[in-house]
Amino acid sequence: MAIVLGPNQYGKAETRVVRVYRDGNVHLLRDLNVSTTLRGDFEAAHVQGDQANVLPTDTQKNTAYAFASEPGIEEIEDYALGLARHFVDDVGPVHTARVEVDEYPWDRIGGPGGHPHAFVRSGQEVRTTAVTVQREEAWVVSGLKDLVVLKSSGSEFAGFLRDDYTTLQETTDRILATALTAQWRYAEPADWADAYAEVREVLLERFANVHSLALQQSLFEMGKAVLEARQDIEEIRLSAPNKHHFLVDLAPFGLANPGEVFHADDRPYGLIQCVVQRDDASPAGPAWESAAAFC
Amino acid sequence: MAIVLGPNQYGKAETRVVRVYRDGNVHLLRDLNVSTTLRGDFEAAHVQGDQANVLPTDTQKNTAYAFASEPGIEEIEDYALGLARHFVDDVGPVHTARVEVDEYPWDRIGGPGGHPHAFVRSGQEVRTTAVTVQREEAWVVSGLKDLVVLKSSGSEFAGFLRDDYTTLQETTDRILATALTAQWRYAEPADWADAYAEVREVLLERFANVHSLALQQSLFEMGKAVLEARQDIEEIRLSAPNKHHFLVDLAPFGLANPGEVFHADDRPYGLIQCVVQRDDASPAGPAWESAAAFC
Amino acid sequence: MAIVLGPNQYGKAETRVVRVYRDGNVHLLRDLNVSTTLRGDFEAAHVQGDQANVLPTDTQKNTAYAFASEPGIEEIEDYALGLARHFVDDVGPVHTARVEVDEYPWDRIGGPGGHPHAFVRSGQEVRTTAVTVQREEAWVVSGLKDLVVLKSSGSEFAGFLRDDYTTLQETTDRILATALTAQWRYAEPADWADAYAEVREVLLERFANVHSLALQQSLFEMGKAVLEARQDIEEIRLSAPNKHHFLVDLAPFGLANPGEVFHADDRPYGLIQCVVQRDDASPAGPAWESAAAFC
Amino acid sequence: MAIVLGPNQYGKAETRVVRVYRDGNVHLLRDLNVSTTLRGDFEAAHVQGDQANVLPTDTQKNTAYAFASEPGIEEIEDYALGLARHFVDDVGPVHTARVEVDEYPWDRIGGPGGHPHAFVRSGQEVRTTAVTVQREEAWVVSGLKDLVVLKSSGSEFAGFLRDDYTTLQETTDRILATALTAQWRYAEPADWADAYAEVREVLLERFANVHSLALQQSLFEMGKAVLEARQDIEEIRLSAPNKHHFLVDLAPFGLANPGEVFHADDRPYGLIQCVVQRDDASPAGPAWESAAAFC
Repeated sequence: MAIVLGPNQYGKAETRVVRVYRDGNVHLLRDLNVSTTLRGDFEAAHVQGDQANVLPTDTQKNTAYAFASEPGIEEIEDYALGLARHFVDDVGPVHTARVEVDEYPWDRIGGPGGHPHAFVRSGQEVRTTAVTVQREEAWVVSGLKDLVVLKSSGSEFAGFLRDDYTTLQETTDRILATALTAQWRYAEPADWADAYAEVREVLLERFANVHSLALQQSLFEMGKAVLEARQDIEEIRLSAPNKHHFLVDLAPFGLANPGEVFHADDRPYGLIQCVVQRDDASPAGPAWESAAAFC
Repeated sequence: MAIVLGPNQYGKAETRVVRVYRDGNVHLLRDLNVSTTLRGDFEAAHVQGDQANVLPTDTQKNTAYAFASEPGIEEIEDYALGLARHFVDDVGPVHTARVEVDEYPWDRIGGPGGHPHAFVRSGQEVRTTAVTVQREEAWVVSGLKDLVVLKSSGSEFAGFLRDDYTTLQETTDRILATALTAQWRYAEPADWADAYAEVREVLLERFANVHSLALQQSLFEMGKAVLEARQDIEEIRLSAPNKHHFLVDLAPFGLANPGEVFHADDRPYGLIQCVVQRDDASPAGPAWESAAAFC
Repeated sequence: MAIVLGPNQYGKAETRVVRVYRDGNVHLLRDLNVSTTLRGDFEAAHVQGDQANVLPTDTQKNTAYAFASEPGIEEIEDYALGLARHFVDDVGPVHTARVEVDEYPWDRIGGPGGHPHAFVRSGQEVRTTAVTVQREEAWVVSGLKDLVVLKSSGSEFAGFLRDDYTTLQETTDRILATALTAQWRYAEPADWADAYAEVREVLLERFANVHSLALQQSLFEMGKAVLEARQDIEEIRLSAPNKHHFLVDLAPFGLANPGEVFHADDRPYGLIQCVVQRDDASPAGPAWESAAAFC
Repeated sequence: MAIVLGPNQYGKAETRVVRVYRDGNVHLLRDLNVSTTLRGDFEAAHVQGDQANVLPTDTQKNTAYAFASEPGIEEIEDYALGLARHFVDDVGPVHTARVEVDEYPWDRIGGPGGHPHAFVRSGQEVRTTAVTVQREEAWVVSGLKDLVVLKSSGSEFAGFLRDDYTTLQETTDRILATALTAQWRYAEPADWADAYAEVREVLLERFANVHSLALQQSLFEMGKAVLEARQDIEEIRLSAPNKHHFLVDLAPFGLANPGEVFHADDRPYGLIQCVVQRDDASPAGPAWESAAAFC
């Protein structure tokens, strides 16, 4: 019966890399938040304080910047794969590297074809990737977060289980709103940008057009449609806070409120999470082991 | 030599009002964060604890919801004027009311003419208004905040004052980025939505096309162009953090960095603030006395 | 009728300065967030883009670090006065400098007299100062923010004004909770640390022991007691969100709720703000013109 | 090859429960943020939109409030165990319930034995628990987060692995600072409050007194000491951002900087995470499957 070191990892979190591509006067912009995490033979660092196997997190930051120059940032998935492969192949003690990237999208001022080097940040969703390289293998998970959507009709919630603590009324017409997080795992390399655009569009289309009997059902339909549209995606995880909008009682003021005035509440919120997958999906391995899972 | 009550005000902050307009199946959405503040004869409330003159902040919240139903929310400026006028006219002890509104814009899923009642939040800027009604008078300030813009060229900073603590190098090509806050005061009622759209467009256009010798100069040109475009605007205030992007030194890794790879820093940041106004502007009165000024 | 530059200022915001004092093995820690703002002859910078009068904000940051070394940081008020005086005296175009400092307090691990150089951050309040130097004159405002306090009894709210939108019930026993911001202006230099400790203690004591008829009354009594305790303080500003705690209706579950179970709500919140001052206070000049007032 | 529902869960997040205990005039306060998550037979809810098995998240919120009354909140672990056991035993479709609770500690104004019902929030750490009940079994994880600690000496970082991207200098005396998150799993029920106090003290003591060769080593020593002190704890997870403090170069201003003036940087930061455990620990089962792991 001894006390031992268990699973462990370390890295550099939230390196804010901005890459400008210049084609004469016309610029392209990549605005990233990069986190790298290494796993491997780091027992001596913990138990004896011997750092001989530890590549500094400062070096990981430098590497993130250097790789933004060469090979550059075509798409975040390529960039993350390159970084993770480097750590596993070139840093002896490392057997697994995980690179998580958030990309903040920017629009050209004046719209597509507009100003050559002036941009306005599109505050809509954040595009994400989480790449894991373990020895010879690699897994690519892509996603989005903070995509805030709302339906002001076409959503009900009824026929639910009731117990002694249930006071909620059934409703056949309510506001349904969420800030969607989605992550999907690829079976093979894809045209990342094209796949992203398609998945995003399918998610929005299904959210809008599925008559919702509950957020669970909307999420499942959204996930299913993604897998139907993209054969190269094996599973998708959806996490969605149910951002409640409560109808305000205006009767004391002599006013009717036929689904017009709502209070948008902050907390608490529902939190609905599910995975939709192919029944013959390849093993996920460490693909989902985010740094957050440690916290 | 006595201890006395000085300026004071109170109100309800951040009431989250969502208003749905239904034209058959086609819905419109107004998503607001409303803060109301009252000034008047509230000395007894402070000094004797006598609340006879104090309209509860809970009532102010109720009123914000009721007015969202009737007269409704045409534009946030109209709505705020109606609320503020009500407090001054109908609540005896109140001589001044200030109503501040943030509006979160939403896009229709599928674009203009798209889905009738499904929306995605446009995360770009937040539209704002701050209306002050004092007895018979009224002032309308409109604005925007969190409009994040970036130029990857067309910006320099040189010829500045140097002292013993100056180490900064001059540059003739740098990234210029900010999260713009702008507030403008109207001389008279306007077509609020139209004015907003025009001011926003002028601000973006000038930010993009002015060759910037410093953020101060860009801001002044942006403000000046707004006043030139809109005769009904008397002054505009601009507040802009200089969100620094530092060129990363890649030389240790054998890489050149000709304006390509940057570190986006969080803190510290420059903070540039100025007012651009007509020299015959009408008195601003209490138009700029925000609740934040008290903090 | 021309378009002209109005009030303007610029500076470096949120420079995070940490200063360690070493007396052998025993260390002292100062952990600051420093913002400097300059006003003066900066018209050419805005109108012509001529930066000859503009001391870079980068230089202001350097100066904040250099002054943390020499003369050092005895108390934040001394440090801010030194910095502001330097900018006004030594930088030609500057006629007014404002230095705002937040200090994050730390406790020694093991308590007073405990570990010589290991600390745990005391998350209670943040200590603040805002010093304004204008030519020969200086104003010192000190304060605190984010001091979260709660009374679970000794607070009522009744006898208030009612109108058509009032639904609130009167109460003679409620939870009163706030996150206090206080700022007080000194008539003359003081023992800053001693004054801070005394004001903080008076504020807490009065919050606790005044039987509250409303938050307005509590704040006034708190402010009044500070002015009674400290002759060197001329006025105090208090800003306090009323953080509502709503009694939960447990009757549907067959449970009484005699002031025991509450929902702590986020938004909206009341916001109560007042100034308590001496009727013969010296002119405040620009003492209260914070950078935030521009936004 | 079909598309199927994978793992899924749902619940109510961040219910803000405040419980007052009244012993005459002397009150005790429990200030909680409660999240409940259910897993079970919810396939029909997703696939057919049939909610017959779904206990509304609104009901979960009601239950959290009701249980705060009866049986009440002795310690957060007891409260969470009671809630989770109820969901599994009394709600048919549920086989697993997870209850996560954050507790915000408050101090009595005037110190221990001070004011009977006036409190000031201790902003130091947040106490946490995450209880999982699966059919007949239960797992209790307790922890803390946001415990911000700093050593201004007794920390070095040298002898590390270097590669082509390494520019970091070795140091034998640096600031070591972090915001600690720790979570430990119990083998059996404990005196939760006593255990919490002891673990917290051990963590602080080891952070302070271990001469640190790296944050990895400090964390391992902290975790090991906890397991040595408490036989009822089987494993502990530590997650610690390395909050970098960079020595400022004051040489351009003619000033030495012998470890005195630092810039506290925001991003990027190192992130060091490890588990310390007994080699004969009981199976962790679903104990660590936080809601966050889904995102």
